[in-house]
Amino acid sequence: MHDGTAPPRRLDHVGIATLDADRSAAWYVDVLGLVVMGDEYVQAADVRLVYLVAPGSPPDVTTVQLVQPFGPGMVRRFVDSNGEGLHHLCFAVDNIEAVLAGGGVDSEHVFLGGRGRRACFLSERASGVVVELTETMPVVAPR
Amino acid sequence: MHDGTAPPRRLDHVGIATLDADRSAAWYVDVLGLVVMGDEYVQAADVRLVYLVAPGSPPDVTTVQLVQPFGPGMVRRFVDSNGEGLHHLCFAVDNIEAVLAGGGVDSEHVFLGGRGRRACFLSERASGVVVELTETMPVVAPR
Repeated sequence: MHDGTAPPRRLDHVGIATLDADRSAAWYVDVLGLVVMGDEYVQAADVRLVYLVAPGSPPDVTTVQLVQPFGPGMVRRFVDSNGEGLHHLCFAVDNIEAVLAGGGVDSEHVFLGGRGRRACFLSERASGVVVELTETMPVVAPR
Repeated sequence: MHDGTAPPRRLDHVGIATLDADRSAAWYVDVLGLVVMGDEYVQAADVRLVYLVAPGSPPDVTTVQLVQPFGPGMVRRFVDSNGEGLHHLCFAVDNIEAVLAGGGVDSEHVFLGGRGRRACFLSERASGVVVELTETMPVVAPR
């Protein structure tokens, strides 16, 4: 991607693994003063996602995403090993396949992620960081 | 702060602890396509900070901040315990004392952080996340 073909548009969100999104959201809202701009269940990952932003943020702002796992999976395994906490970074890109075709990164599979957008987690962890890509435009209407 | 006195302006940056900021930055630049928008040494924390953003980002965008510790301290201890990886979230606020006076959060001390801005780490970890506050405007000229 360093040839300029398809750099990310922005840092889309930071994912925080939590066992109780309501409790976690309450701290960010009641104590820190953020607001909830989304709350959804994502079937492909069996997680609840709650999005937090500063009041008055534009729609394309970087969000704090609370991720509450319901079943087994990468987020549940993370919490079991590390406890609740920062889990991943996600960058917004126009087209995932264009990025993967660049050859610099690889992913296990593309799935229908939050807000009706295609997403994937990269196979490589850079400096220990789990990195996700999500597309800038939804492919199905977000619930 | 939930009374609306001083909510954050935005998520300022996400801090990644690394033992080699050059190596970490190279992945985000060469593989992912981000660009470096800052590189500085912060005396108060004895760390090097490298800021990464998507190409063409506005000045107030949320950044990825690589944090390379030189001496002992919280970041070095984090790496020793957890390895490199996501370390903290930082929210931009107009005035740190106004936030702390709200009573919802407490901090150990305020220091001169990155980009010439006053900053503090909150004493409380919400869902395991280390949270920093930094002021929106620098108090000394950034180097």
